[in-house]
Amino acid sequence: MPPNSAAREGELSPVTRERRENSLWLTEEQTSGLSLSLRVSETVFAKKTQYQDILIVDTTEYGRTLVLDGAIQLTERDEFCYSEMMAHVPLCSHPSPLRVLIVGGGDGAILREVLRHPYIDRCTLIDIDKDVTAASEKYLPFASVALKDPRADVRHMDALAYLKTTNERFDVVIVDSTDPVDFAAGLFQSPFYADIKRILKKDGIMTELAESPFSDTALMKQAIQQMRTVFPIVKMYWGAVPTYPSGMWTYGVASLAPDPALPVRRVEGTRYYSQKIHGASFVLPPFLSDLIE
Amino acid sequence: MPPNSAAREGELSPVTRERRENSLWLTEEQTSGLSLSLRVSETVFAKKTQYQDILIVDTTEYGRTLVLDGAIQLTERDEFCYSEMMAHVPLCSHPSPLRVLIVGGGDGAILREVLRHPYIDRCTLIDIDKDVTAASEKYLPFASVALKDPRADVRHMDALAYLKTTNERFDVVIVDSTDPVDFAAGLFQSPFYADIKRILKKDGIMTELAESPFSDTALMKQAIQQMRTVFPIVKMYWGAVPTYPSGMWTYGVASLAPDPALPVRRVEGTRYYSQKIHGASFVLPPFLSDLIE
Repeated sequence: MPPNSAAREGELSPVTRERRENSLWLTEEQTSGLSLSLRVSETVFAKKTQYQDILIVDTTEYGRTLVLDGAIQLTERDEFCYSEMMAHVPLCSHPSPLRVLIVGGGDGAILREVLRHPYIDRCTLIDIDKDVTAASEKYLPFASVALKDPRADVRHMDALAYLKTTNERFDVVIVDSTDPVDFAAGLFQSPFYADIKRILKKDGIMTELAESPFSDTALMKQAIQQMRTVFPIVKMYWGAVPTYPSGMWTYGVASLAPDPALPVRRVEGTRYYSQKIHGASFVLPPFLSDLIE
Repeated sequence: MPPNSAAREGELSPVTRERRENSLWLTEEQTSGLSLSLRVSETVFAKKTQYQDILIVDTTEYGRTLVLDGAIQLTERDEFCYSEMMAHVPLCSHPSPLRVLIVGGGDGAILREVLRHPYIDRCTLIDIDKDVTAASEKYLPFASVALKDPRADVRHMDALAYLKTTNERFDVVIVDSTDPVDFAAGLFQSPFYADIKRILKKDGIMTELAESPFSDTALMKQAIQQMRTVFPIVKMYWGAVPTYPSGMWTYGVASLAPDPALPVRRVEGTRYYSQKIHGASFVLPPFLSDLIE
């Protein structure tokens, strides 16, 4: 027996110690019957603001992760799947997108994608919670990298009030809302879509997340149906986002004229989006097209 | 105060009681940093066989669920996503698929999809564990419905040994293995693919799951690379399967001659697969095509 074995008896073995260090999990009950958990290596930031609980953690597999009111908003590893499909589908199918509005999206990830397009004059971002933007600038550099771009026009105010009163007009509007509860509940209803239509220029296109066909079928159907009462052209597209409920994520896109399923330009530097993915993302499995018929 | 309130003090409120009844969760640590959990309403069947632990539970959101060695194999709600893409991509791109072999898949779900094609002469299914088939016949009728079809030829034996010695030949081989551990470890390596090539007829096609680009990148790359050392045509396609790791699932397909990305016939009654989905599923996001270049 080595001379110091007795002194070591109370110590953990290396394996046990490693397990203990990494045993904190972030668990999101994505629906009443489905939970997703990410192993956490460190808690980075937590703040209760006037509007929501902001939590930023480092996870072992999906990197730095932003959580709002307990719902995963983005992870360093897979946010490109969502951010690229929200931005590039409307931008690449619009004939000349110079002015863009992002409703929500205060972390800046979608803004970063919008500003990949060199012909954009200005991208306005309106998020009600300035603390999300401040936390992203400090802790989520991969998302917030473009917030200081001279073409970025970031405002912290109530987007719903802004939409009703503004005289500004846009070519593309991207609605990056949180889940449809509390102050975001109105973001999937026809009065909201009518407000957006009012501020769209000729050939205008809007895109909005439409949740998961497995996890929130009712909301997905409602979003598409309500868009159809307002816009002449409404389509759905989909893609993978591993850390969103069910991993199968849908998007609603409404257009005043251009076919949003038809890309007319390219964008450089993307990892999920391509012109071919653009077209393929509008091919819906029969169970999904049946749901929104 | 109502006369019987004192007697009720120790009772649970209806809300609390309901929460307690449904608080059992099936949690799969899909990787060391990612877990998926399904709320369980009832445990239906559990058996430790010579090969693996079989567990069948009813879940509140994904219905009846088959779990082997702690890994979710199929759920009643989303197995069509996987079963249809495993069966119909090779079958609809083969010019004349009469004889089909399924390696694994003892639950019968892929067999059910194969036998949707009316021109199939015989579909042989070889699964090492007869208890999986027996449990599926009793508890998973949605999966096992075709096991008694006269065209079904179900054998319980070691598929690896069978592949090395059989004189039978097939048009399409579908490898529905469990995760690549223990006895399934050899199912993603070139000697195994060479054995399959040996039993394929002219124009033969094989398909195998290739895991997730987020959760098992190394295995996905290995499967495709090893297929390429054996087959002249190797491609990858992908689709959504919510209860598999990351929800983004890839498939490797190898062909002796036909282009597996080009469907030449239709199939009736599907919910995920269509000819358009067939083509779209071969459009890979750039990050995924880069991984297997």
